[in-house]
Amino acid sequence: MTRTIHDLATPALLVDVDDLDANLDLLSAALPGDRLRPHVKAHKCTALARRQAGRGHRNFTCATVREMVGMAAAGLGDDLLLANEVVDPERLKRLAALDARVTVAIDSEATLRAAAAAGLREVLIDVNVGLPRCGCPVEQAGSLADLARTNGLEVRGVMGYEGHVVGNEDRDAREKGCEESMELLLRAHADVGGEVVSAGGTGTYDCNRWATEIQAGSYALMDTAYAKLGLPLRQALQLWCSVISVSERFAVADGGLKSLGMDHGNPSLPDGGKLWFCSDEHITFAPETPVAVGDRIRVTPAHVDPTVAYHERLHLVSGEAVVDSWEVDLRGW
Amino acid sequence: MTRTIHDLATPALLVDVDDLDANLDLLSAALPGDRLRPHVKAHKCTALARRQAGRGHRNFTCATVREMVGMAAAGLGDDLLLANEVVDPERLKRLAALDARVTVAIDSEATLRAAAAAGLREVLIDVNVGLPRCGCPVEQAGSLADLARTNGLEVRGVMGYEGHVVGNEDRDAREKGCEESMELLLRAHADVGGEVVSAGGTGTYDCNRWATEIQAGSYALMDTAYAKLGLPLRQALQLWCSVISVSERFAVADGGLKSLGMDHGNPSLPDGGKLWFCSDEHITFAPETPVAVGDRIRVTPAHVDPTVAYHERLHLVSGEAVVDSWEVDLRGW
Repeated sequence: MTRTIHDLATPALLVDVDDLDANLDLLSAALPGDRLRPHVKAHKCTALARRQAGRGHRNFTCATVREMVGMAAAGLGDDLLLANEVVDPERLKRLAALDARVTVAIDSEATLRAAAAAGLREVLIDVNVGLPRCGCPVEQAGSLADLARTNGLEVRGVMGYEGHVVGNEDRDAREKGCEESMELLLRAHADVGGEVVSAGGTGTYDCNRWATEIQAGSYALMDTAYAKLGLPLRQALQLWCSVISVSERFAVADGGLKSLGMDHGNPSLPDGGKLWFCSDEHITFAPETPVAVGDRIRVTPAHVDPTVAYHERLHLVSGEAVVDSWEVDLRGW
Repeated sequence: MTRTIHDLATPALLVDVDDLDANLDLLSAALPGDRLRPHVKAHKCTALARRQAGRGHRNFTCATVREMVGMAAAGLGDDLLLANEVVDPERLKRLAALDARVTVAIDSEATLRAAAAAGLREVLIDVNVGLPRCGCPVEQAGSLADLARTNGLEVRGVMGYEGHVVGNEDRDAREKGCEESMELLLRAHADVGGEVVSAGGTGTYDCNRWATEIQAGSYALMDTAYAKLGLPLRQALQLWCSVISVSERFAVADGGLKSLGMDHGNPSLPDGGKLWFCSDEHITFAPETPVAVGDRIRVTPAHVDPTVAYHERLHLVSGEAVVDSWEVDLRGW
């Protein structure tokens, strides 16, 4: 007997397979093969990464060592980039021991020496292109690359994430901001050398013409924050909840702060109704049409990454049929 | 060799054992034995619950079926209250099969019939005392209790959470709001009967004189939101992070949106400095005194419950020594 979404215990994450595939197809058409280096931090799921690999993307981006280790163990280690700085010697040694091609970002002498000491071989110079986060100043990129090479590391190129512009809802401003960031990154690249200029995200996948590869992640599942950009991507991810209490003016569903990333604000109700507030295990909302205890509702997360990180599984659905359940196997650090 | 906090991989949750014990002692003195029914949703950790049980609290509150199942499996099932509505027949059957005393909240005919059908035996009537969430209207509590008894359920009493007042920073308003809520709950109790009047939380532990038992949870570990109330409780929980990048005006640590519940806003930096913003795996901050890559910093979560739910372990520390590591074994649903 086919399992349907009504058989699932709640709260549960649903991934509409048609919407997911449409998103994967769209980015694969726009950024074929190695032009896209999908970021797994958004879904933390090797089964989903395998679906991306099936469209010709052999190279992946990770944010944590656990993501790198899990991707290698899943046989998806052709070319893994840890687009983040790590100084933990034990974790770096684990990376160096992987049966995978491993490249790590470095942005300082300290991260450079930690990578070299652990026996890692390939690095990208991480450059600050405007987002106040990791990345060395443009003018230091070349000397950092020289020092890396002196220390026996192969420098594959540069990376620089224009995270301060990817969410800008004004398309012109987003494109302009992207261009300005990439001008900085190309200046650094001129000093660094190497074949790789890695940058970008879902918000700039269609306007970043300067990077050799785009690190988009959210595009696969999407969320209401990225939906505001008006990109031709579909909302593939929903939180599936049960109504557990109904009163005169409002009802309560069994999602909440432990099943939804909340930094971008409240989730949305795609089938109508007004969300009042979220508690740890409750969503209080005013339904548009009457609901009964036991009814199910869809809730659209505001931010995909910290939402998925709360869950053990993604349930793949086609209409109401549950066609597969994927483990979110890259959680933690 | 003693393991210290400097040996821990980051991000990691630290629990200061002296602060934790001071909090546990304070509540045990204020609410001895069965006057306190600690809520495990705040820490999701049977090892911590055992420490609470060691102070004479045999009865616990849970928010999810998985918490109930885990507490029973840990031998802490003397008297477990699921202070939440559940309609999933499979999960309710699992509850009924536990080797534990199980009581569930019901607030409607639907949840009543689901509990009875699953073979559960004991219930509390959940009453809305002002928070727009679960709970039946006061005037329906008596008839719901009658119907429960007709269906073979034992009604142990009432519960009603004054969640709309527990966080009020004005102590007088908090006390007044608590009194008004408890007047409603006692009216319902007069119609329902039974020995139990269960209510309260950390914010009202010292002013709720009407409930027979208080469901406090956050008091054990605390967070910056509850700290604003000026209660004599200590901040026992910190996120321990490594500095991974340092630039002229700011530095970056390896905590972020996947290691911190963000619904109450940004975390705080107890050792000084100004937090700029959090990304998935980064905290950008302006340090008060210079920091170097590899340095460690403490970050205080704004909301304990959704923070702990992201983590696999709580590391118990005494000064800088790590004296134990507890699994957060009650995560999920």
